[in-house]
Amino acid sequence: MRLRIDLAYDGGDFHGWATQPGLRTVQAELTAALATSLRVPGGGAERVVVFCAGRTDAGVHARGQVCHVDVADERVERVSAEGPGRLLRRLNGLLPPDVRVRRVAEAAPGFDARFSALWRRYVYRVSDCPETLDPLLRGHVLTWPRELDVGLMHETARVLLGRHDFAAFCKRREGATTIRTLLDLDLRRDDAGLVEATARADAFCHSMVRSLVGCLVAVGEGRQPPAWAASTLAARHRDPGLRVAPARGLTLEEVAYPADDALSARAQRTRARREEHEAGCS
Amino acid sequence: MRLRIDLAYDGGDFHGWATQPGLRTVQAELTAALATSLRVPGGGAERVVVFCAGRTDAGVHARGQVCHVDVADERVERVSAEGPGRLLRRLNGLLPPDVRVRRVAEAAPGFDARFSALWRRYVYRVSDCPETLDPLLRGHVLTWPRELDVGLMHETARVLLGRHDFAAFCKRREGATTIRTLLDLDLRRDDAGLVEATARADAFCHSMVRSLVGCLVAVGEGRQPPAWAASTLAARHRDPGLRVAPARGLTLEEVAYPADDALSARAQRTRARREEHEAGCS
Repeated sequence: MRLRIDLAYDGGDFHGWATQPGLRTVQAELTAALATSLRVPGGGAERVVVFCAGRTDAGVHARGQVCHVDVADERVERVSAEGPGRLLRRLNGLLPPDVRVRRVAEAAPGFDARFSALWRRYVYRVSDCPETLDPLLRGHVLTWPRELDVGLMHETARVLLGRHDFAAFCKRREGATTIRTLLDLDLRRDDAGLVEATARADAFCHSMVRSLVGCLVAVGEGRQPPAWAASTLAARHRDPGLRVAPARGLTLEEVAYPADDALSARAQRTRARREEHEAGCS
Repeated sequence: MRLRIDLAYDGGDFHGWATQPGLRTVQAELTAALATSLRVPGGGAERVVVFCAGRTDAGVHARGQVCHVDVADERVERVSAEGPGRLLRRLNGLLPPDVRVRRVAEAAPGFDARFSALWRRYVYRVSDCPETLDPLLRGHVLTWPRELDVGLMHETARVLLGRHDFAAFCKRREGATTIRTLLDLDLRRDDAGLVEATARADAFCHSMVRSLVGCLVAVGEGRQPPAWAASTLAARHRDPGLRVAPARGLTLEEVAYPADDALSARAQRTRARREEHEAGCS
């Protein structure tokens, strides 16, 4: 039995998603809570393996992270008998307040949190003038000291859309492809005046959203001309002038999946492509 | 010269607005930053006196707090010459990240942050189901373990509107009136599913919004019948069953003032009323 778990977290006090020895990570917290609530023998967290759709970096937040975990043996009957709502409440009782489970459900056949995903949507938020300073949001909104030309940033982003080799915007990983399809990169001010950069892609490589935002901020504040975005992309190697925007402003908002009957095919297709490219992160 | 200062703060680490010896308060932080940036001789914070529109309790937040401070002597010329934007940047450079100044301006003649105010608007936010759990907002949204009937809460709130003696909903202060005019008390779910209680009144007495919310939550979760709101109001003394909602969910969002030419008259009228009642908090 495979469970789909939707969760949200404040990444500020986490060293990212992926378990690392001696460091506080979201995966380690969730794995431990699952081991306890599913009563995995000997409290052996090593027998619970959680996979997620977006392996967020240290300091990056999530509202719409999606994971899956496989449940075996007599635990299947217990989860089925009690219902997933009971497991949700138990997990939230065990997890620290900076991680919250928003939904637990039995996954449809063929569902894979990572490989069945159609796309991921991230939002990067920036406050660039005194009127928008809101201390209640300071944990997930970057403060920028100069005003940004959001219209110019939005126009500049057009050239980055589509299927490209985003090597210039990715931290290199040995043998991993940097070809991605960027579906949206929209810049706007929200009702409160905050700058919101929404990025949607089939998948993102490491530090890609933050590098794209770093590029657009440089254009928006007038430090670089708009044409710099296209020339950076075309160069396919990191420009030393390109700053990766801080993790704090970035939130994984949503992961989308196809209809249930297309989950398996999607996962197979993604896996095949990744193997072809010796693929890296998602 | 009187300055109007609009500010926002995360109340989580403050013992409220008002200066108290040995405790971290918003007034003390702002007073110290003003003394430094206005170069008040001897760093004497005692010569800077800041008045605010809403003296928030420990743990209560503000997005739309309004203050005034009087500037004298040679400092008037300096502020005038440099412009208020310079003072704003200097204050934000000195203040801790949980207090932000959003605007500094020379106040119109007759402006008094407290006594010229027409009304205050507070919002209390509650997450009452797993779908709405958002760790990024946990500092200013209360988590409630049972689902709330927001429609019923909104209907129940109707009976509390208007001019009443709100003694049942106020912490008693010797000699202070508890008569207030409640202009709005609206309950709704926002786009993300959070419950928002918006309260607007000419002024609020101590713990009034949180007591009103405590009453409506009891009705919304079915612990009390809707008629309890009217009977509590009519009793004019605190019902032991009435719980004051925790400070964390409450934010002062806005303070409204009349047009410039009506500021003095409004302040005089408010002062006269308060003296008549030996008035308490605002």
